[in-house]
Amino acid sequence: MTTYRLHYFPESGNSFKLALMLTLCGQTFEPVWTDFGGGVTRTASWRANVNPMGEIPVLEVDGVRLTQTGPILLRLADQYGRFGGAGEAERFEVLRWLFWDNQKLSGFMAMYRYRRAFTPGPDPQVLAFLRGRVDDFLGIVEAEVGRRPFIAGDRPTVADLSMSGYLVFPPDESGYDLAARYPGVHAWLQRLAGLPGWKGPYDLLPGKRLPRYA
Amino acid sequence: MTTYRLHYFPESGNSFKLALMLTLCGQTFEPVWTDFGGGVTRTASWRANVNPMGEIPVLEVDGVRLTQTGPILLRLADQYGRFGGAGEAERFEVLRWLFWDNQKLSGFMAMYRYRRAFTPGPDPQVLAFLRGRVDDFLGIVEAEVGRRPFIAGDRPTVADLSMSGYLVFPPDESGYDLAARYPGVHAWLQRLAGLPGWKGPYDLLPGKRLPRYA
Repeated sequence: MTTYRLHYFPESGNSFKLALMLTLCGQTFEPVWTDFGGGVTRTASWRANVNPMGEIPVLEVDGVRLTQTGPILLRLADQYGRFGGAGEAERFEVLRWLFWDNQKLSGFMAMYRYRRAFTPGPDPQVLAFLRGRVDDFLGIVEAEVGRRPFIAGDRPTVADLSMSGYLVFPPDESGYDLAARYPGVHAWLQRLAGLPGWKGPYDLLPGKRLPRYA
Repeated sequence: MTTYRLHYFPESGNSFKLALMLTLCGQTFEPVWTDFGGGVTRTASWRANVNPMGEIPVLEVDGVRLTQTGPILLRLADQYGRFGGAGEAERFEVLRWLFWDNQKLSGFMAMYRYRRAFTPGPDPQVLAFLRGRVDDFLGIVEAEVGRRPFIAGDRPTVADLSMSGYLVFPPDESGYDLAARYPGVHAWLQRLAGLPGWKGPYDLLPGKRLPRYA
């Protein structure tokens, strides 16, 4: 029986991705709330004891600390034989969308939402730049998930869990009313939310929230 | 014998990564220069015939078109048994740095350099935002490659090929004099350039260049 401890903060979509994957695979984990807003991940002691790179999430697997959500999702998919896709072509698609998501959709949505909702006085030009990119990426997802139920085919994979990880937060945080503007994306998120055991981020990862600025 | 055709433009660091990997694995490829600056990747016919996502590079492998540089590098590493790392721990490190690079180092350096050198009138605030991120990421690489010869350990992997892919262009394009400001990064790039068969991007991928604005 593997023991998991997840260092997280509630607003972190990447933390949510790992919490959801573990939950959907029938695993439990010890949630370790981390004072990201208070700057603890930038302290020397946190870097020495938890993660030298200062990143959240960190998943401890039987005491071994792993970072980078994409590779961890792939490892869990291998370990539990779930959500990894089947066959060479589907597995390549999973990997392709996982990379695309980290660089593009989740990467930019995370930066945009964090600045928009959780940062005082964000630079409007930078915000507009980030939002423009998110618009492009959502347009691509809208077209793709209109053609098939899940991003790599007929069944959900870690690529879907990753790509949806920052889209499930409330519209007043993200600034995107997906149901109104991206109906295909909304329907795909509903399909994912219908998976047995699915829970939202603030249910899976409770605790003190960041101060809000928008 | 596998046949490769690489759709590229010379300034594309991601195209360079694939060209270099193929070359270091002893493979040849047909280079297909693409008029990226002229907007061909945004045309309906290019999207219909080459890549619906409009991305460069595209690698045709025996006529099958693959996109997303990270997954392609991993597939080539598997196929040729080169630069993939050995053992579960090292392979996880390779994957972790590949994701980190796509989201962070290469991702931001590509955006920064493209706007700085190849775009008329880039927004100075956005440029400053992107440069700030690149500074952070180069600082992380400087610390990491000071502790071991290559990013995942004692031998080079596709993670090194990926992370160096946008750092090998001339300082007057990137705006970064790495030799002067990041001596550890510079020394690591020199180690990579010493690999048998290594060539630079404009040697591997010749052809008409983009107009310059800086």
